Amino acid sequence: MRQIRPTDSDNAAAAASGTDDGAEGILARPFPGSRKTYLVGSRPDLRVPMREVALSTGDSLVLYDTSGPYTDPGAGVDVRRGLPALRAGWIAARGDTEEIEGRAVQPADDGRHGPDGQAGDTFLGSGQAPRRATAGRAVTQLAYARRGEITAEMEFVALREGLSPELVRDEIATGRAVLPANVNHPESEPMAIGRNLLVKINANIGNSAVASSIEEEVEKMVWSTRWGADTVMDLSTGRNIHTTREWIIRNSPVPIGTVPIYQALEKVGGKAEELTWEVYRDTVIEQAEQGVDYMTVHAGVLLRYVPMTARRKTGIVSRGGSILAAWCLAHHEENFLYTNFAELCEILRAYDVTFSLGDGLRPGSIADANDAAQLAELATLGELTSVAWEHDVQVMIEGPGHVPMHKIKENVDLQRELCHDAPFYTLGPLTTDIAPGYDHITSAIGAAMIGWYGTAMLCYVTPKEHLGLPDREDVKAGVIAYKIAAHAADLAKGHPGAQAWDDALSDARFDFRWDDQFNLSLDPETAREYHDETLPAAPAKSAHFCSMCGPHFCSMRITQDVRKYAADHGLDTDEAVQAGLAEKSREFAEQGARIYLPLADRQTP
Amino acid sequence: MRQIRPTDSDNAAAAASGTDDGAEGILARPFPGSRKTYLVGSRPDLRVPMREVALSTGDSLVLYDTSGPYTDPGAGVDVRRGLPALRAGWIAARGDTEEIEGRAVQPADDGRHGPDGQAGDTFLGSGQAPRRATAGRAVTQLAYARRGEITAEMEFVALREGLSPELVRDEIATGRAVLPANVNHPESEPMAIGRNLLVKINANIGNSAVASSIEEEVEKMVWSTRWGADTVMDLSTGRNIHTTREWIIRNSPVPIGTVPIYQALEKVGGKAEELTWEVYRDTVIEQAEQGVDYMTVHAGVLLRYVPMTARRKTGIVSRGGSILAAWCLAHHEENFLYTNFAELCEILRAYDVTFSLGDGLRPGSIADANDAAQLAELATLGELTSVAWEHDVQVMIEGPGHVPMHKIKENVDLQRELCHDAPFYTLGPLTTDIAPGYDHITSAIGAAMIGWYGTAMLCYVTPKEHLGLPDREDVKAGVIAYKIAAHAADLAKGHPGAQAWDDALSDARFDFRWDDQFNLSLDPETAREYHDETLPAAPAKSAHFCSMCGPHFCSMRITQDVRKYAADHGLDTDEAVQAGLAEKSREFAEQGARIYLPLADRQTP
Repeated sequence: MRQIRPTDSDNAAAAASGTDDGAEGILARPFPGSRKTYLVGSRPDLRVPMREVALSTGDSLVLYDTSGPYTDPGAGVDVRRGLPALRAGWIAARGDTEEIEGRAVQPADDGRHGPDGQAGDTFLGSGQAPRRATAGRAVTQLAYARRGEITAEMEFVALREGLSPELVRDEIATGRAVLPANVNHPESEPMAIGRNLLVKINANIGNSAVASSIEEEVEKMVWSTRWGADTVMDLSTGRNIHTTREWIIRNSPVPIGTVPIYQALEKVGGKAEELTWEVYRDTVIEQAEQGVDYMTVHAGVLLRYVPMTARRKTGIVSRGGSILAAWCLAHHEENFLYTNFAELCEILRAYDVTFSLGDGLRPGSIADANDAAQLAELATLGELTSVAWEHDVQVMIEGPGHVPMHKIKENVDLQRELCHDAPFYTLGPLTTDIAPGYDHITSAIGAAMIGWYGTAMLCYVTPKEHLGLPDREDVKAGVIAYKIAAHAADLAKGHPGAQAWDDALSDARFDFRWDDQFNLSLDPETAREYHDETLPAAPAKSAHFCSMCGPHFCSMRITQDVRKYAADHGLDTDEAVQAGLAEKSREFAEQGARIYLPLADRQTP
Repeated sequence: MRQIRPTDSDNAAAAASGTDDGAEGILARPFPGSRKTYLVGSRPDLRVPMREVALSTGDSLVLYDTSGPYTDPGAGVDVRRGLPALRAGWIAARGDTEEIEGRAVQPADDGRHGPDGQAGDTFLGSGQAPRRATAGRAVTQLAYARRGEITAEMEFVALREGLSPELVRDEIATGRAVLPANVNHPESEPMAIGRNLLVKINANIGNSAVASSIEEEVEKMVWSTRWGADTVMDLSTGRNIHTTREWIIRNSPVPIGTVPIYQALEKVGGKAEELTWEVYRDTVIEQAEQGVDYMTVHAGVLLRYVPMTARRKTGIVSRGGSILAAWCLAHHEENFLYTNFAELCEILRAYDVTFSLGDGLRPGSIADANDAAQLAELATLGELTSVAWEHDVQVMIEGPGHVPMHKIKENVDLQRELCHDAPFYTLGPLTTDIAPGYDHITSAIGAAMIGWYGTAMLCYVTPKEHLGLPDREDVKAGVIAYKIAAHAADLAKGHPGAQAWDDALSDARFDFRWDDQFNLSLDPETAREYHDETLPAAPAKSAHFCSMCGPHFCSMRITQDVRKYAADHGLDTDEAVQAGLAEKSREFAEQGARIYLPLADRQTP
C-alpha cells in the first residue's frame, strides 16, 4: 500500500497532462489555483474545509469541497494510519455511547473459509475500540434533531451548505434530510442529503470476484472524492471484503455506504437459499462496528412481488433484489429483512447507521420502467420508512435505474408521496438503453432531471456500466458527469448560491481570463489541456480571442467594444442608447470600428 | 487528399481498438454485424439506405442510417469525384430548373486577395453545371407540398422514417417540417426536420484562421455522418473556404448548412462595417450554386435590439450576431439582412435553400438565458418566417445556447407560438457553465430535454467547446452524445418504433448475447473494447455473467431461473404464481436452487 502525501501544487503543471506520475501526485495534489480554506464554527474544533479558487482579478470563489485532507498540503496523510478522527471528541462528549469489545474479526469476513487464499494487507489502524450506544439510547442525528439539538455535525453541514443550523436541524428532524454519520466513522466530514440541500452524488467502488485489489479500491475512493463524490459505496463482492472496507473507511473523508447482503452471501458460499437472518445480522453488526455510515437494505422485496417480475423484459436486475427474491422463492417465506425490520432498526440506531432502503425491483430497461413490481415495492419502502422513523433511525429511499424522460417525474412524485418526503437516492436513471459505453451520459440526462424534480442524491454511472469494472479514468468520468447533473439540478432548483459558480466562470470567459476559466472548471486540468491542444503558446492564455474564431474576429470582443462604447458615451439605458445612437454610430465608424486586432497584436499559433 | 474506400468488414476486428490504421479503414468500414440494406420505393431509383443489424437469434433490426455510401462495401467512393448524384434525375425530371453558366469562382472566394497563400487542392468534380429555377418557378419542397405533390424526396423521407408519404408532405406543407435539398446538392440522401419526425442532430465542422485543412474537414464530415450526424454545417472561416466547401458538398450524403456572413466577412477583409448587401448576396449565390442546403441568416438582429445586450453578463456570443450588431452600430442603419429579406427569399427559392434563421442574440451564459434581447429577436424571427413562407421558402429557427433546465421549456413554447410551428433547431442548450471540457455532457442534458419538448434538430457541442477546435475524437464524442439526446427525446415523445432499438438491446443484455449487445450499440467498437478490458477471454462473450458480479452470482441469471421455473410449472399469471408458490418453492430448493454455475463452467478471466 503506497502512502498518499499531498504535494506542492507547483508540480501540477508538469503532471497535468499524464497519469503516469503515480498515485501520490495525482491523488494528493491541490487543484491548480485553489487552496484549502476553513470556515470556523462556534467552537475551534469545528472547521469546515472549503476550496478557495483565487482569481486573477483579486477576488476568489469559495466552493464546496469533498476532497478531504488529501488536497491540503498542510495535512500529512498516511493511509496506513488513516485520517484524523475529526468527530471523535464530539461523539465522546455526547456521553451516550461507550467503547465495546466488539465482534471479533473472522476469516470468513474476508471470504476465507480455509487456507486457500492470500490475506490482504492488514490495516495498522488507530487501535480505537468500536463504540455503541449505551443501553436504550438513540444516538442518531434524527433523535438529536427531534429533541431540538443542533449537533456539531449539523452546524458543520450548515456552514458547508451556507444555510442556517436551524434549517439543517429541522430538515433532519422531519426526515426530509439525513446526515449519515456512524459513531465509528469519526474521520468523516459531516454532510447531509435532502431535497432542500445541494444535490449530492455517490460513487460506487468495490472489488469483485473477477478483478481489482485493496490498493486500487482505496485509490478509487480518494480519487472519486477528489472529483466531487459526496459519498462512496463499497460494493466489494470478492475476497478481503472486511479488510478492504477497513482501509476505505479509515481513509475516507466522506460517508461510506455498503450493501450488507453482498458480504452475507459470501459468508454462505454464494448460496442465496442458505442465507439466514442470523448471518445477515452478524454482518450488519460487523460493518456497523467498522463505521459504515449507510446500508442498502432490500427489505421491500416481498414474496408476493417477485412473480410480478416474471414477464418483465429484464426481470430483476438489482443484485440484492435477486438474492432476496431467490431466497423468498426457495423458502416460500417472507423476506427476512422485512420480517426482522424492527430488530434491524434497533441495531442501526445504536451506531447511527442510516437506512438506504433498496429498490430491489427497480427496472433494468426502458421497457420495464414504472411497472407494477417497482411501484409495489416503493409503497412497502414507504411503510418501512415509518417504522424506521419510529425507532429514530435515519432513512433514504433508493430509486431507478432505467426510465425514459417522460416517466421520470412520476417516480419522484410517487416516492415523495409514498415515502413521506424521505430523501430519494436514484441510480441515474438511464434515459435510453442503446448506448453501452456511454451510460454516464445516458444517465446524466436522467440524473439532472430527477435531481431538479427533487431527488436528493444521485448514484453515478460510469462508462463501463453493463460492460466491465470501472478503472480510475471511468470513475472520474462518472463523477464529473454526475457533478454536472447535480449542479444543473441545483441551478434549476434555484439553490441559493449555486449560480455564483456559473457566473464567475462566465465572467472569466467574457473577460478572456483563460487561467481563471481553467481554475474554475470542474476539471481544471482537462480544460487547460484542451485549450493548449489548439493554442499551446503561453501568450494565448491572455489573448483576447479563442481558437474558434481566431484573431481576426471575435464575437466576445465585439460585445466588449459595444459595451465600452456605450459606457464611454454615457449610454446607460436602452432609451439613451436609442437616442444617442445616430450620432454615436458615426463616431464609432470614424474611430475605425475595430474588429481586428492590429496585425502586430495577433498571435502566431 | 486520400481516397476513402470501403473495406471488408473482416478487417474490423483488427482495426477496432486503434485509430492508427488511416482514414480509409476508419471512415469506410461497415459497422460490425451490420450490413447496408435498401428499402425500395415506388420507383427503382428510389432506394433508401438503412443499416441492418444481424442478431445471433436469426432476427435483425433495421436502423436509420446517415452514413451514406461509405459504409456500403459495394459502393466505391472516390472523394476526388464525389458521391453519385442520387437525386439528379428527380430534379431534372421536374422540368422547373435549368442549367446555368453560374457565377465564376474568384480568388477572393477562397480568401486569396493576392499571391499570398497556397491554394487548396482543386476539386476535380463532376463537371456538372449549376442549376437554378427557371424564371418565376418555386422549386422548393414547400411549394411542391403545398400543391399536394409527393416528391421522390418526400417518399424517401417517409420510407426512412417509417411514416406515410402523405404525412411527410403535410408536415412540409404546413411548415412544421423542412426537407433541406438544394437542387445543386443531388448527392444528398433526403431527410427532413420537424417536431413530428425523429429528432435530428447536426455536427459543425470547418477550418478556421488558426488550424485545420481541407482533408481534415472532409474526413470530419464523413466521420460525423458515420456516427449519426443528420446534417453537417461547414463553418469555415479561414483560407480556402470555397474549395473546402466544394469537397465537402460533393462528398456529403447529408444536407450541408453554412453561415454565409462568415465568408462575406472574409471577402471584405474582416471589417464588419465594410459589409454590404451586394457582397452578401454574391456570397449567397456562390454558395447556393455550390449546393448548400440550408443557410443561417441572422436577419433578426435588429438595430434596436443591440443595446439590450449591453448589460448582459456575456453580451453577444453568436459570431454572426456580433458581426451584424457591429455593422448596425457602425452605420446606424437597420440590419441589411432584414431590409433585404424579401430579395433573399427570391434567391433561396430558386435553388431550394432552406432558411435557418439565426439567433444572433442567444444567451452565452446561464445568467443571460431567456432575456429580453433573446426573446425580442425570436419575435422578429417569427415575422420573417411568415415572409419566407409567402415566398414558398422553407424555414427553421435557431435557438440557444446556455439555458438552465427550468427555463428550457419556455424556449420551446415561445418559439412554437411566435414562429408558427416552424422547426426549432437549438445549440444544446448547455445547462451549466462550470464544466469546460465536458460541454458535450452539460449540453446533452439540455438537448435531450428540449428535444422531448418539441425541438426538431439539435446542434451538437463537442468537448472542446469554448476551449479549442474539435479533432476527430471530439467530433465523435459530440455526435454520440447528441445521438443519445435525440434518441432519448424520441423515446419520451413516443415516436413510433423508437423503443424497438432499446428493446432489442435490453433483450440481448438479458439473454447475455454479448455480441448482439455490442453490435446494437451506438458505438459497437467502444462497447466491445470496454467489455474486453475486464473480461478479454473470447468465451466470456457467451458467458452467462458479467464482470460486475462475476461468475458466483448474477442477478440476471437468477431472474432467468425464476422465469424458467415459472414457465416450466405453468405459472403464467401472477395469480398462478401465488397459488403454486408454496409447493413449487420446495421443488426449487430441492433442485439445488443453483445460483452458482458449477465450478467447471466458470470462466478463468
